[in-house]
Amino acid sequence: MKTVGILGGGQLGTMLGTAIADLGARVAFYDPDPDAPACHRFADVTVAPWSDGAAMARFAERCDVITYEMEHVDIGSGLRALAEKTALRPSLHVLEIAQDRAREKQHLRASGLPHAMFEIATSREAARAIASRFPRPFIVKTTRGGYDGKGQLLVRDDVDLALLDALAEDATVVFEEALDLVTEASCIVGRSPRGEVCFPVFENAHAEHILDVTVLPARVPSDVRHALETLAIETARSLDVFGLLTVEFFVARAGSARSKMLTVGDLGLVVNELAPRPHNSGHVTRKACTLSQFELLARILLDVPLATPELLSDHTYAMGNLLGDVWLDQGSADLDLGCLADYPDVLEVVLYGKADARARRKMGHYVCRGRSPDVALERTRAFREALRRRA
Amino acid sequence: MKTVGILGGGQLGTMLGTAIADLGARVAFYDPDPDAPACHRFADVTVAPWSDGAAMARFAERCDVITYEMEHVDIGSGLRALAEKTALRPSLHVLEIAQDRAREKQHLRASGLPHAMFEIATSREAARAIASRFPRPFIVKTTRGGYDGKGQLLVRDDVDLALLDALAEDATVVFEEALDLVTEASCIVGRSPRGEVCFPVFENAHAEHILDVTVLPARVPSDVRHALETLAIETARSLDVFGLLTVEFFVARAGSARSKMLTVGDLGLVVNELAPRPHNSGHVTRKACTLSQFELLARILLDVPLATPELLSDHTYAMGNLLGDVWLDQGSADLDLGCLADYPDVLEVVLYGKADARARRKMGHYVCRGRSPDVALERTRAFREALRRRA
Repeated sequence: MKTVGILGGGQLGTMLGTAIADLGARVAFYDPDPDAPACHRFADVTVAPWSDGAAMARFAERCDVITYEMEHVDIGSGLRALAEKTALRPSLHVLEIAQDRAREKQHLRASGLPHAMFEIATSREAARAIASRFPRPFIVKTTRGGYDGKGQLLVRDDVDLALLDALAEDATVVFEEALDLVTEASCIVGRSPRGEVCFPVFENAHAEHILDVTVLPARVPSDVRHALETLAIETARSLDVFGLLTVEFFVARAGSARSKMLTVGDLGLVVNELAPRPHNSGHVTRKACTLSQFELLARILLDVPLATPELLSDHTYAMGNLLGDVWLDQGSADLDLGCLADYPDVLEVVLYGKADARARRKMGHYVCRGRSPDVALERTRAFREALRRRA
Repeated sequence: MKTVGILGGGQLGTMLGTAIADLGARVAFYDPDPDAPACHRFADVTVAPWSDGAAMARFAERCDVITYEMEHVDIGSGLRALAEKTALRPSLHVLEIAQDRAREKQHLRASGLPHAMFEIATSREAARAIASRFPRPFIVKTTRGGYDGKGQLLVRDDVDLALLDALAEDATVVFEEALDLVTEASCIVGRSPRGEVCFPVFENAHAEHILDVTVLPARVPSDVRHALETLAIETARSLDVFGLLTVEFFVARAGSARSKMLTVGDLGLVVNELAPRPHNSGHVTRKACTLSQFELLARILLDVPLATPELLSDHTYAMGNLLGDVWLDQGSADLDLGCLADYPDVLEVVLYGKADARARRKMGHYVCRGRSPDVALERTRAFREALRRRA
């Protein structure tokens, strides 16, 4: 009986762990946080810092294969030693690129994949110099640890030097052209020696830089959808991914942008970010597809043949995130789901079992379906509003 | 945060536990077997005998509500004490009836629900007397602990007195008319103070008394399907079930049977058995329905509004059981799923993580879909044959 190790016991790891256990394998988690969702749920969780090489070595010894649920795992000597002894999927190479925005951009450029025009500054002085001449509007991003909009600065005209200096303090930053976005999309690819497949393209809407709603299928022309799927697979191939790769895209007006875009009609497509793991936008697959993102990765890790994920019906599906704000609005530690009675189209609500509801913290999600994109989205938004009001 | 207790950590409990945890609650298991599937998977498992009243009391104290994954829980003083302190769903009353075939039959008769003609013998002498005059063919069944065909004797003409005496030794037995079966079916009802719903009717085929394949939707006329759903709900109401009730049916030729049948056209329907819990035949709902049997029970236990489970598409879905025999045929402790590559219509394979593959032991299941019942069934049978041969 195989044991699969998962670095990180958050909601993504937990849902992955269930899919792996459903294929008959054992699951072992590693997480520094004794209150991570997996700790309350799974039998086998090692709680130790990422820097604890000995704990990581003991963990790795028990695992046949290891994966990770987020790319912000600290690649210290412990993880390096682990990856030398036990198969890490996707590889350390992929992880190193995906966790560093500068390397990610450089990889896209070197591989000839479409991406936003960018420049990298490795010092405060360099950052100020680039900022003075980079075409407006642009975004400055830190290269590591930034997610959900943290570590970003949008510049339309004048540069706030204090903010820029704060970002560039001790850190490399990336300047990139701010595109005229039509929408954002993502596509999850699964690859193993047994084959490669991808999910249908998701469309993603963010609110305050955090994923808000994912719509499946994406509301883009079919040639754009096809181009995005092809790009996602090419990107996964360029990294020789063994596991999942979530490719996030900008779909922009081609117009006067200077970025290297793939143009389809009057739209320009660029790869924005890479995540070599299951993804928040992929939650929708649990109810919308013949195979979920977690089931696909479980198959890959356990050397089971892949299958092409298909939509279960011709409905539109929408996934909405539930942030801690909803709990705060309800004023309750236990979310009251009473209003579900009025929303039969909400197929599932998943709560991650986090005790501490903080603003902007991802606490759960739900999946809704509708006969049309408009209906699905309207119901998705209405359900969350009803939750906030409490039934 | 609520804690739900589950008595029994087998595959049904495990899948239920996942659905409950996905709604943000804690799950605590109780099972006498330290090797039960839940032990390798869930953080909170009490391993103690059913007879250990103290362990059960400690367990109950931590739980807000308790359910069970099989009806063969020993109703000793421990469970009685537990049910007095903590809400048991479904109730002890339902459990007491469902775990005793004689009480089950008496309940059906008293409630005016259709059932096979029966007589109860409480001694060897009474059993011999009834056997001598009961109309042929008939079946003798022990009243407790019998499942998957254990504790049954079919009599077509002469009675084998040695076998009859063995069954009736120290035990009450039920004689019932052997009907001229067209097929078997089941329907799962969910009831709570928030409402009552049922799944579409499943059709069940057995092999050597063990469930072999479940087909959804059942291949019976729509008026029969409707009658079965109505009967299932009436049966659940008659027991005032708070939780799930799986109602198993015989669909027989009405003809000359003496049983109290519900006649629909030339078919006669009777309730065969009751299981107040998720059911093997309900595994199909995880891939075929908008809501699985486990998700429905999780909602009931956590006081979340119910939803009517619907088929996800107009496909036919079929669930096949994987018994230990398949492992023995492969000659491997780890089942090789390589042949999945040839069966894209097999949407999921679930393995229960049991280390010891014995003949007739339920080790896993799979769900297949097809554009027609014939296609779905053909692929379902072919996949299992391919597994036996090993890819």
